[in-house]
Amino acid sequence: MREQLTVAQAGEARTIAAIRTAAPSSLNGDDAAVLEVTAPNSRHVCSTDILVQGRHFDFRYSLPLEVGIKAVTQSFADIQAMGARPTAVLLAIATPGDLPLKTVADIAGGIHEAASPWAAELVGGDVVKSKDLVISLTALGELAGPAPALTLDGAGVGHQVIASGHIGYSAAGLAILQHFGSRRAVPQDDPILQELVEWHCAPHLPVARGSVARAAGAASMTDNSDGLIRDLGLIADRSAVCIDIESAAIAPDEKLQHAAECVGGDAWKWVLTGGEDHTLLGTTDTRVPSGFKAIGRVRSLTSQVAVDVFGEHTDESAVLVDGTRPQFTAGWQSL
Amino acid sequence: MREQLTVAQAGEARTIAAIRTAAPSSLNGDDAAVLEVTAPNSRHVCSTDILVQGRHFDFRYSLPLEVGIKAVTQSFADIQAMGARPTAVLLAIATPGDLPLKTVADIAGGIHEAASPWAAELVGGDVVKSKDLVISLTALGELAGPAPALTLDGAGVGHQVIASGHIGYSAAGLAILQHFGSRRAVPQDDPILQELVEWHCAPHLPVARGSVARAAGAASMTDNSDGLIRDLGLIADRSAVCIDIESAAIAPDEKLQHAAECVGGDAWKWVLTGGEDHTLLGTTDTRVPSGFKAIGRVRSLTSQVAVDVFGEHTDESAVLVDGTRPQFTAGWQSL
Repeated sequence: MREQLTVAQAGEARTIAAIRTAAPSSLNGDDAAVLEVTAPNSRHVCSTDILVQGRHFDFRYSLPLEVGIKAVTQSFADIQAMGARPTAVLLAIATPGDLPLKTVADIAGGIHEAASPWAAELVGGDVVKSKDLVISLTALGELAGPAPALTLDGAGVGHQVIASGHIGYSAAGLAILQHFGSRRAVPQDDPILQELVEWHCAPHLPVARGSVARAAGAASMTDNSDGLIRDLGLIADRSAVCIDIESAAIAPDEKLQHAAECVGGDAWKWVLTGGEDHTLLGTTDTRVPSGFKAIGRVRSLTSQVAVDVFGEHTDESAVLVDGTRPQFTAGWQSL
Repeated sequence: MREQLTVAQAGEARTIAAIRTAAPSSLNGDDAAVLEVTAPNSRHVCSTDILVQGRHFDFRYSLPLEVGIKAVTQSFADIQAMGARPTAVLLAIATPGDLPLKTVADIAGGIHEAASPWAAELVGGDVVKSKDLVISLTALGELAGPAPALTLDGAGVGHQVIASGHIGYSAAGLAILQHFGSRRAVPQDDPILQELVEWHCAPHLPVARGSVARAAGAASMTDNSDGLIRDLGLIADRSAVCIDIESAAIAPDEKLQHAAECVGGDAWKWVLTGGEDHTLLGTTDTRVPSGFKAIGRVRSLTSQVAVDVFGEHTDESAVLVDGTRPQFTAGWQSL
C-alpha cells in the first residue's frame, strides 16, 4: 500500500526527499548547486532535454528506473558529443498529482544509476504539478584543458567518419515493443529481442567515449539521437561537406535481421533513420579513437549535392551511402 | 495571418529558428553550449525551474514576453541567492502543436530581454510536443573567486536579517488580476494597481544584488520565492537559528494598502506568505549591503521554538515577527 502513495498525498517536501534519497548528492539542497572546476583551463558545457510521457517514454514499455537511465544517457550524449565529460545533472519534473511517489523516486534512482559511472550527481531540481508527466533534464559537463570542443562544423574533406557502438538497436527495440504491445508480451525466450528492447529502454553506453575522441584528435562530433542520416546531415550541413557512408560498415547485423523478421520491420530503416541510440558520430583526420569504428569518408560537396542541399533545404541530402542517396532519410521530428 | 502560424505548422527547425532569432547567441546551436570561465578560481552554479501554463503563468494575465521575463527573473534569483552572477540560460519547451509560433518567439524574446542586463544569453534548449504548455528554464552562473557561496546554513546568532526590494508586490499583483479576472479589466487609470500587476507579471530586478551581498560579506541568502516566512524559515531551519523580523521594517506600504482596499485582500498576508517577489533575503554579521535593508535579527532557538520545529516539523515556526508567531505562515506549495 505504501507504494501507492501519490505525490499529491506525499506533498512537495516528501517528494523532494524521496528524490534526494534515491539520488543523493551533497551538492543538492540550496538555491542552486555549486560545481567545482577540476582541471585548469576548463570550460563548462551544458545541454537540456525535455521528455513527455506517451511521446518520449511509455510505462507500458519502460520501467520508471529505465526512463531515468535513458534520460541521462540522452543528456550525457550531448555533453560527450562536445568531447566533454559529464559532471552533474539537474532534474525538473511536472507531474500529475496521482503519480505514485515511487515512480518519481525510481526515475531519480535511474538518473543516479546512469550518472554514477561518470562520478556525476543529481545536484538540483524542481517538482511541480501538471496534467502530463514531463521530465526536463539538464546535463552539465567539463571540457578539460584548452583543446577545442568537438563541434558540428569541424568535419573536413578526407576525414574518416567514425561511430561508437550499435546503430539501429534502439529503433529495433521500439519496433519490437510496438509489435507486441507491451514489455511483458515480448517473448521471454528470445534473448535477441530482449536485448534489443533493453537497448531501447535503458541504454548503458561506455563511459568517456567523447573525451577519448577529443583526446585522440577527432575533429567533429554529434550523437545519434534523431537518426544516422539526419545527425550526420547536421555535421555535413554545418561543415559544408558531403559525408559518404560505406554500407558494409553499417549493415544490419544478425540481431537486427532477426528482429526485422520477427516483427516484419526493415532493419535498414532502423539503421538509417532510427536514432535514439545516443552513440557518437564524428569525423577525424588522424587515427580512429578506441571504441569507435570507421564507417565512411568526408568528401567535397558535389554540385549536384549542393543543389539538393541549398535548393531543397534538406541537409540529409549531403549524406550518401556508397556514393548514392540513401534508401531512407527521415528521422525524429519533435514537433 | 502570419502571426497565427502554429508551431506544428512551422515544424521543429523553423520553431527553433524563431527562438534563436528572438534570443540570439553564438554559443547556441551545437549538441551542447560551451561556457568560458571568466575569472580565476571560479566555480559554476546551476539551478532549474519548471513552469506549467495555468499554474505558474496565465496568458489572461501575462503576455508571452512577460512569461519569459519572469522565468528568467525567477531562475536568476536562485543564482544570485548563492552570491553568484548569472551567465547563461537554457530553455526547454513542451508545447501543444496549436500554440502560435509567435508565442514561443515572444517567450524567447522575454528571456533575451531579462537576461541581457547580465550579459547572459540563451545558449541552448529543446522543443517537444505535449498537451500542456510547460517551460523549463535552467540558469547557469559563475561564482567568481574563492570566497564561499551564500548558502542557507550560513545564518548565525546576532546577524542582521537583510532584504532587497519589494516584499508582497507580486502577491498583490496576482490578487488584483484574480479580482478583475483579466489584465485588461484592471483599471487603466489606477497607476498603483497597474504597477503592482507589472511586478507580478514581469518583475525587473536590479542586477547583481547577490554578488554585491557576497562581496560585502553576507553570510546566508535565499530568494523570496515561496513566501517571506517560508523562505526565511528555510534559512532558520538549515542554520538552526530563530529569525525575528521587525514588523515595522516589512509593514505593507501605501501601495499595498491601496490594493488591499481595492480588492478586499489582506496586505499583511501578501507580505508574509506571497512569495514570487524573487527579491533576496539573507543575513549578515557585517554591514548591510547596498540595495538591501535590515528587517530583523537572528536569535538563538528558544526551547519553545525548538519544540515547534522538531515536534511539528514546521520550519516556519522558527521565524517570528516582533518576537511572536506571525499571523500568516503558509506559502506556495508545488504539489
